[in-house]
Amino acid sequence: MRPAMQAPGRVVIVGGGFGGLYAARVLAAAGAPVTVVDRRNFHLFQPLLYQVATGGLSPGDIASPIRSVLKRHLNARVVLGEVVDIDPPRRRVLIRGGDELVYDTLVVATGSEPSYFGHDLWMARAPGLKTVEDALLVRQRVFAAFERAELEPDGAARQALTTFAVVGGGPTGVELAGAIAELARSTLARDYRAFDPARARVLLLEGGDRILPVFPAELSRRATRSLERLGVEVRTHAFVVAIADGSLTVRVNDRDETIPAATVLWAAGVRASSFSDRLVERFCARRDPGGRVEVTADLSLPGHPEVFVIGDLALASGRSGRPLPGLAPVAMQQGRFVARRILGREPAGARFRYRDKGQLAVIGRNAAVCDLGRVRFFGFPAWLVWVFVHIAYLIEYDNKVLVLVQWAMSYVTRKRGARLITNPAVE
Amino acid sequence: MRPAMQAPGRVVIVGGGFGGLYAARVLAAAGAPVTVVDRRNFHLFQPLLYQVATGGLSPGDIASPIRSVLKRHLNARVVLGEVVDIDPPRRRVLIRGGDELVYDTLVVATGSEPSYFGHDLWMARAPGLKTVEDALLVRQRVFAAFERAELEPDGAARQALTTFAVVGGGPTGVELAGAIAELARSTLARDYRAFDPARARVLLLEGGDRILPVFPAELSRRATRSLERLGVEVRTHAFVVAIADGSLTVRVNDRDETIPAATVLWAAGVRASSFSDRLVERFCARRDPGGRVEVTADLSLPGHPEVFVIGDLALASGRSGRPLPGLAPVAMQQGRFVARRILGREPAGARFRYRDKGQLAVIGRNAAVCDLGRVRFFGFPAWLVWVFVHIAYLIEYDNKVLVLVQWAMSYVTRKRGARLITNPAVE
Repeated sequence: MRPAMQAPGRVVIVGGGFGGLYAARVLAAAGAPVTVVDRRNFHLFQPLLYQVATGGLSPGDIASPIRSVLKRHLNARVVLGEVVDIDPPRRRVLIRGGDELVYDTLVVATGSEPSYFGHDLWMARAPGLKTVEDALLVRQRVFAAFERAELEPDGAARQALTTFAVVGGGPTGVELAGAIAELARSTLARDYRAFDPARARVLLLEGGDRILPVFPAELSRRATRSLERLGVEVRTHAFVVAIADGSLTVRVNDRDETIPAATVLWAAGVRASSFSDRLVERFCARRDPGGRVEVTADLSLPGHPEVFVIGDLALASGRSGRPLPGLAPVAMQQGRFVARRILGREPAGARFRYRDKGQLAVIGRNAAVCDLGRVRFFGFPAWLVWVFVHIAYLIEYDNKVLVLVQWAMSYVTRKRGARLITNPAVE
Repeated sequence: MRPAMQAPGRVVIVGGGFGGLYAARVLAAAGAPVTVVDRRNFHLFQPLLYQVATGGLSPGDIASPIRSVLKRHLNARVVLGEVVDIDPPRRRVLIRGGDELVYDTLVVATGSEPSYFGHDLWMARAPGLKTVEDALLVRQRVFAAFERAELEPDGAARQALTTFAVVGGGPTGVELAGAIAELARSTLARDYRAFDPARARVLLLEGGDRILPVFPAELSRRATRSLERLGVEVRTHAFVVAIADGSLTVRVNDRDETIPAATVLWAAGVRASSFSDRLVERFCARRDPGGRVEVTADLSLPGHPEVFVIGDLALASGRSGRPLPGLAPVAMQQGRFVARRILGREPAGARFRYRDKGQLAVIGRNAAVCDLGRVRFFGFPAWLVWVFVHIAYLIEYDNKVLVLVQWAMSYVTRKRGARLITNPAVE
């Protein structure tokens, strides 16, 4: 028997990422009074941020205003603001500037940020890739390095300027390294006069024994081969021990090597957003070392059935008992689950179960690896799957068909139209 | 008889705007050793900046990397850098950071910047629209004002937050005011819950007796009517006498009126770039009150046939003896003229003559005014002319066909995909 519908109270969702937005859409469509609060006025399609960082797309191409996504639902409100605290006795969410939002149910989906494992000084030297500003900073560094190389008379200094080290061999690192290698070898091939961009070095540094460790070993091998064909030097068992201005030091088998590299990019890990501090203070929540918040089987906080935590911020367990990875599909499914739960559409003892549909990582212009569990693809077929999945998502959200067509075309023509250096350029 | 070709020496072009780039293309195609220096790595299609400011386009859509424009020509070099001085005896251009470029011929095309007629404090309160950063700042202010209005309980304060004053009734002011009015009345129509965006006030303030003063009076009247249909309040004979935080004071017929308005945008005038200071110091150049540099009939500096000044920076005279306006077509034609002159393709006593092909200004989603001299268009036909001219330009430069198709589509669907607030949002 289907459970009786119960009238949902006021729902406040903190964070308009994949988890928050999927929850909001289900709640809004059901007519529930829902409010989404975010520091930004847009939802960002983070899986394509590496394209913004390498000049293939503009930030507007992968961002959808949260308001437009929810505009058809008069019961849905969007608030631009930073949530600074929660007041559980009064059931209020406090926003910087003094505004307050009353909730009956709270969904916290504030995501994650790059983690430097305690080396906070590295943050300024090796930007990560989580926000639009991150991506524009990476873009600025990459293109400014080529520009400085054009004016550099010394050969060794020029080689350092055109050496790009990507730290971390997960999907983001693989995608970033592949895109930079293609940028140097194809897009910029004839742009410079004082040096050949094709001689740029792109290093992908991974601490473990293979890149893409969450994929089957066969796909890691194929990804490595694809990257090497693009000219990326893939180094495994390589731990970064120091990042200085203009170089980084890597430890491989207890031997330290210092590599002159003007541009170091960080894709080695993330930690849960620091908003989890508030959950610890106000709800005695418990966290793992990565800052993720322990939740019950229905994704609520223990002892607080009115507070749900989803997405990268949540420490939820999969079937095997291992924590679920911080992936967009996990956050999306969790968002939909808690929305149904709030609407009374899930039975009393319902548990969240992640349906793993597979994983994708793209390597340069026309290769990818794709693990659908039983089926594995690589190369061009995997790339087609990857393109299809991403186009489908962006169309669902903002009808950005032509953006994707344009981008597909620039993939074919190897052009990158969004190569603006918009920070103060050369000092 | 065609003049004999002479081998051109090294040409350095300062500035990659319309003037500089048109000169560079002709010189590059002829095989001349040419270097373009710019502070930015991209050429910006300024006539569409108002679309970036109102969320219709991304910066990358209207920017072309200067390198890609010139990549086919191995004789053409592009340098990213700020020119800080010129050393005429050594024929060097000095770049911040210490690099130097040797020239035989110098083309200075550094353009113009917003002018506040001595009210420099207004600069921070009423941003102009000349750079990508300007446009993103305007975008941030416009969308943040709507966001703050959503949280503002007081009716009068909310009205002030949704009042937008555009100062200056030239083409930029007309385009900006029209775009903001459409944004409020169409794009954002269903986005907010606490107020109706259609009740936003958009003021266009012009000091003279009509907007678009360089157009025939009939087109000014039609433009006024089109703007009013969009909901813009057009005020002529209105002089801004003060801009404060949250309000501006306008003097009309010796009566001062203070209008609460959170967002004031400046389109009232430009002055030549301050690089003209260097031309005064190094070449004893003379300037008009707007900072424009006097040039001879062939656009060179008096007494310095090896130095050309073109575009908004140059005070060149038209047929009637009046100074030529600071328009893209003027700069383009001047760029081509000096390139031909440098290549020896113009006869000895050649004078630059501006071929006026007409003027265009667009008003909102599907109206424009278009003055082709004998023929005048307005409304939708003029809009089609306007679209055609702009598409033709962008295709010529960067093959941005799909950008324009996408943009045309969002014109039809009234969507604006690039509504990112990328500065720190709400304080």
